[in-house]
Amino acid sequence: MAIVLKAKEAAELVYSEIAARVKEWKENGKQPSLATLLVEGDAASAYYASSKQKIAEKLSISFQLHTFANDVSEEELKRVIATLNEDEHMHGIMLELPLPAHLSASAIEACIAPAKDIDGVTPSNKLAVYTGNDTGLYPATPQACIGLLKHYGYKLEGRNVALVGRGQTVGLPLFHLLQREHATVTVCHSRTPDLAAQLKHAEIAIVAVGKPNMITKDMVHPGLILIDAGINERADGSITGDAASDLSDGAAAVSPVPGGVGTLTTAILFRNLMKAMDIQTSMKGDA
Amino acid sequence: MAIVLKAKEAAELVYSEIAARVKEWKENGKQPSLATLLVEGDAASAYYASSKQKIAEKLSISFQLHTFANDVSEEELKRVIATLNEDEHMHGIMLELPLPAHLSASAIEACIAPAKDIDGVTPSNKLAVYTGNDTGLYPATPQACIGLLKHYGYKLEGRNVALVGRGQTVGLPLFHLLQREHATVTVCHSRTPDLAAQLKHAEIAIVAVGKPNMITKDMVHPGLILIDAGINERADGSITGDAASDLSDGAAAVSPVPGGVGTLTTAILFRNLMKAMDIQTSMKGDA
Repeated sequence: MAIVLKAKEAAELVYSEIAARVKEWKENGKQPSLATLLVEGDAASAYYASSKQKIAEKLSISFQLHTFANDVSEEELKRVIATLNEDEHMHGIMLELPLPAHLSASAIEACIAPAKDIDGVTPSNKLAVYTGNDTGLYPATPQACIGLLKHYGYKLEGRNVALVGRGQTVGLPLFHLLQREHATVTVCHSRTPDLAAQLKHAEIAIVAVGKPNMITKDMVHPGLILIDAGINERADGSITGDAASDLSDGAAAVSPVPGGVGTLTTAILFRNLMKAMDIQTSMKGDA
Repeated sequence: MAIVLKAKEAAELVYSEIAARVKEWKENGKQPSLATLLVEGDAASAYYASSKQKIAEKLSISFQLHTFANDVSEEELKRVIATLNEDEHMHGIMLELPLPAHLSASAIEACIAPAKDIDGVTPSNKLAVYTGNDTGLYPATPQACIGLLKHYGYKLEGRNVALVGRGQTVGLPLFHLLQREHATVTVCHSRTPDLAAQLKHAEIAIVAVGKPNMITKDMVHPGLILIDAGINERADGSITGDAASDLSDGAAAVSPVPGGVGTLTTAILFRNLMKAMDIQTSMKGDA
């Protein structure tokens, strides 16, 4: 049976680091604060926002939930973001996805101040990922994939990594973060003719497609470490990843969904909030 | 013997397209114009500038060569760039590399107006490569690698491509452009333990490292198509690529250096100038 790469312990380590830093900030007279913009009408968006709220409370981080009707205009969302950008007591700003079809996520996200962009969605933070600029805020899910591997002691340098998926949210930024770890990365996607052959050459596979059963048992081998970054909703409302559920027989290690990448992603979002506060503090120092 | 993938014909096709477009611009009262900033003291920089000047003359494109002493300040270069940015009769701006050690290429390049940045070196054009935004100007060498393969009728979609090198100038932007062609790309680099094994799985290899003899005969196989994007100066002043010179026995096709990627790169720089003029015209139309 494969090792199950649960993220609970790794996430708890991150949360205890954050708790110590929150204490420090408060001793220095700063109340760490996070704002989330939620457009009503999508169950997943609402779930993500409410789970962040619960964690923020546990960490003594202030949490503002800005809720908008389903027919809200792009201008209204941008206006609220502009106000939050200006508010020096607000340190992190997030927009919950998915949005209704009449709204452009990228156009709205581009308005977030880069120093408050804790999920790395603004143009300047995307550029930081691309150019390897360490002063940027990187998206949380790609960081969580790497963090989970490191937590379990898997080396990335010199390893053959098959990255399945090349989306803007996970695949492409993860490709760049894996360069910094010096892995040899093969990026596979829907036009890759023989995914099984690619996985055969891989020591580590990371899957971020958003499609259940993308990776089936016949594709994996006993030496493979598989990180599943997929989050898919089943008809019954339960959550499943991109890998088939019977996979654990065939691989060396598999991260579960739920309880894997997603669990660590939330912790890293809050760690990004701490980094955002560092960035904002050093910007003030420069001024 | 391997097919030698000479770029002369492909470059001539690009030049004849450009000649037709230059004629059109002139009929519409516009004289296409390009400026190059050259800091004295590097033979390669001076050579690149002078070869562009010759081609510009042939194409009836105005060419301004701005030459600076070896101890020029960053501020002076930025000042000249600002003037060229403002000049509506100037359509393309380039900075010849390498620069003396006291100057930061990226800091100076960042000052070029994105719409005049014909080698795709500004932050906003880098971001366009990363996000797949078609309205950007992409760097010429990565485009030339793909253009040479297409000229010889090689399909990229679904092919296993080994990309050797992950620099900001060629490797990384080329990785992104290859995504658009739907190749399955493996990015190899100095920490890849077994480059020969990676090339064995590849149908196409593109090498952009900047080191002679990176690819030796024992690494290639009779089915491999090899594009050599390396430009290295030998002690005697002659130019050689990243692949060993005896390689043509072992691979299916090899691009020569000189006469390969570099030849097409220069043509594509001028094609980018035409695209830059289109972008500038549509920006005016919007205003």
